[in-house]
Amino acid sequence: MSDTLPTQPGAASRIKARYWIETAFPLADAAFIMAGEQSTGTFVRTPGETDELRARYAARVEKIVELGAVDAPSLSGSGLPRKHTGPVIRRAAEVTLSWPLENMGPSLPNLLATVAGNLFELKPFSGLKLLDIELPTEFLSVYQGPQFAVEGTRQLTGVYGRPLIGTILKPSVGMSPEQTAAQVRMLAEAGVDFIKDDELQADGPHCPFDQRIPQVLRVLNEYADHTGKRPMYAANITGEIDQMQRRHDLVAAAGGTCVMVSLNSVGLPGMVALRRHASLAIHGHRNGWGIFGRSHAIGMSFIAYQKLWRLAGIDHVHVNGLRNKFCEEDASVIASARECLTPMFAPPYKGCTIMPVFSSGQSARQAPDTYKALGSLDLIYACGGGILAHPAGPAAGVRSLHQAWQAAVDGIPLAQYASTHTELRGALEAFPD
Amino acid sequence: MSDTLPTQPGAASRIKARYWIETAFPLADAAFIMAGEQSTGTFVRTPGETDELRARYAARVEKIVELGAVDAPSLSGSGLPRKHTGPVIRRAAEVTLSWPLENMGPSLPNLLATVAGNLFELKPFSGLKLLDIELPTEFLSVYQGPQFAVEGTRQLTGVYGRPLIGTILKPSVGMSPEQTAAQVRMLAEAGVDFIKDDELQADGPHCPFDQRIPQVLRVLNEYADHTGKRPMYAANITGEIDQMQRRHDLVAAAGGTCVMVSLNSVGLPGMVALRRHASLAIHGHRNGWGIFGRSHAIGMSFIAYQKLWRLAGIDHVHVNGLRNKFCEEDASVIASARECLTPMFAPPYKGCTIMPVFSSGQSARQAPDTYKALGSLDLIYACGGGILAHPAGPAAGVRSLHQAWQAAVDGIPLAQYASTHTELRGALEAFPD
Repeated sequence: MSDTLPTQPGAASRIKARYWIETAFPLADAAFIMAGEQSTGTFVRTPGETDELRARYAARVEKIVELGAVDAPSLSGSGLPRKHTGPVIRRAAEVTLSWPLENMGPSLPNLLATVAGNLFELKPFSGLKLLDIELPTEFLSVYQGPQFAVEGTRQLTGVYGRPLIGTILKPSVGMSPEQTAAQVRMLAEAGVDFIKDDELQADGPHCPFDQRIPQVLRVLNEYADHTGKRPMYAANITGEIDQMQRRHDLVAAAGGTCVMVSLNSVGLPGMVALRRHASLAIHGHRNGWGIFGRSHAIGMSFIAYQKLWRLAGIDHVHVNGLRNKFCEEDASVIASARECLTPMFAPPYKGCTIMPVFSSGQSARQAPDTYKALGSLDLIYACGGGILAHPAGPAAGVRSLHQAWQAAVDGIPLAQYASTHTELRGALEAFPD
Repeated sequence: MSDTLPTQPGAASRIKARYWIETAFPLADAAFIMAGEQSTGTFVRTPGETDELRARYAARVEKIVELGAVDAPSLSGSGLPRKHTGPVIRRAAEVTLSWPLENMGPSLPNLLATVAGNLFELKPFSGLKLLDIELPTEFLSVYQGPQFAVEGTRQLTGVYGRPLIGTILKPSVGMSPEQTAAQVRMLAEAGVDFIKDDELQADGPHCPFDQRIPQVLRVLNEYADHTGKRPMYAANITGEIDQMQRRHDLVAAAGGTCVMVSLNSVGLPGMVALRRHASLAIHGHRNGWGIFGRSHAIGMSFIAYQKLWRLAGIDHVHVNGLRNKFCEEDASVIASARECLTPMFAPPYKGCTIMPVFSSGQSARQAPDTYKALGSLDLIYACGGGILAHPAGPAAGVRSLHQAWQAAVDGIPLAQYASTHTELRGALEAFPD
């Protein structure tokens, strides 16, 4: 679609980025320093930095929203304004900068050096985090965005009107190809829609990719032949560029529909190279995300992060889940998931929405709150114990999840719905809140 | 060299990683949770997690060093042990874990998911930072490490017995190819050994790579023809995988000797693909590094980080400089630089040492302290204002740096050496401490 629309860089096209900052500098000065460092400026004004050059290429401070004073610096190492006297007032603020697209062109790796480069280490800041980015549509002339996303994933699995019920192969490492295939058979027979490798298992010498994949997919092909239902299996192809392309082709040849990639392990250009090559859905795993997102004072919000990867071409991404076993709060989980379902570009351009993946400590319990908070069924709902530890077995575990989501959609409290649905009742007994 | 040595995974080969942690859990429990999450374990013990499987594949807690109690959690979101009663004692510690290489094989992207994956978000931790990694030599069967490093860079530039004196093209963005080439001519004539693009300038529409590179390298070729001296120009080829390879070839064809890549923009597999293709030195730019390194409570130390990139194949990497204009302390700068010069593997294996690049606010002033702290001349010493803002012009700026480093090596105080060296005297007057 985007191919028919003008996506050449226009003089007016700008990139925007919003940051949380913490500084003892006057806010306008601090924002000006960020803008300078990330465009035409340097610590020492150079002869070539003419007014004309600045007018055309300098980053612009679009907006500053003061958030109030802070007691102590969040991070060490920051400085005070030169010749500062008197008490130090340290403030937090949100700053929005913009750059002409002409500075770097529609290039994700070079965008990164601009919006998420040296500025994290600038002396005036005791905290600096990238909160959001807004990109011009020219990026769609270079990047393909998701190939399958929500609709394509539903078509590949034949699941409509409810979330895909997913699960993760465990133990994470140590299983042989045969053991992996046996577990996949058990999970398929239990009725799951989606199965993924753990991110720790890609091509370990004890479970080589080239042996695991044919065995797993033979199981799924047989199951599909007998039942007409084909669970999606996200095969972890994380590796070097050529390995990922070759492994993708092996999955495709064996009848698979999806590959999984650890985003932070492969980098944006790695993902872009895979996407250009890919005929299968790409399941994005964000392990290592904590480095970017966990501190309020440094890094990048998931809102900004996932936009980069959506443009690069992922179809699914992990967002944690409500009442998860990690450190993330529910509000953050829902904001992440909602963002995945929110278009990056307005029609007629491709919106690049993708499917959020809920996981970590999920069971029938969280379905109603998840549905209420998200307002959508377009997600993968991945459970481990929530399926395998169901007292009546994994098939009952899967049915309990179907029932929980139906109850959520119908607006019926789980306990009430459970009175007429055995598997859900078993789940509520087995998995207390 | 490594090709002739055994580098197949042996049963005994293990990966080690050392972490700083902060937790309210008993330290042994916390370490066990990290080890479990990053190997065979999950929140719920699964049937397949047999004792035999654990014995072979589970990560091992090698060492715990308690660092004392902390007053308040560094990061929010952490939890307390189940059924915890009584006062909370939160402690910091260093924990060393090890994994059998068999879990992931010698694969950098999959190593990353293991040593720097989900664990940053684990509930028991109010802080978790990867401090160091130790890899078995099997990684050398897959990764090439640096191609040029210190010796190769000296051969390409003909500079021996002192640091390479380098500089960065400024303004960062906005110059046309013609303006860039004119600045390169001026810098070459001033006598610099090394010139680099700014990380903000790769292939902006106003300064296309394909136009900039031939013009810059024509200048340097002419200069080399006349003088016999060829400054190294690090052309910023950061981009998609195919773009980087094509741009590398363009630089090589035009007579260049070096390409520059923004590490965090391209990812480890991107770098590995480039290294396999490369016939030129690879200058690693760490912009965005602040996300990983700036907080004491989350992320990755530069010690661990640079090992990954050295193995992937960079020849140089930025380490900031003494009394720099960013937030990093001098001790951290020196530790980083020293690590670049420290072998990752003992002989007869390739040590993968690389050349550290000092920059940010550097002038003749920091040479003696840098030499004293590092004890080596194997570095690139990059100055902007320290060259261009010299009162007698850039050639005097370069000479002042030669003089400062000679004074450092001879153990003569700068002020004393300046009494008989005009350019150094000018530098000390122009750049007060």
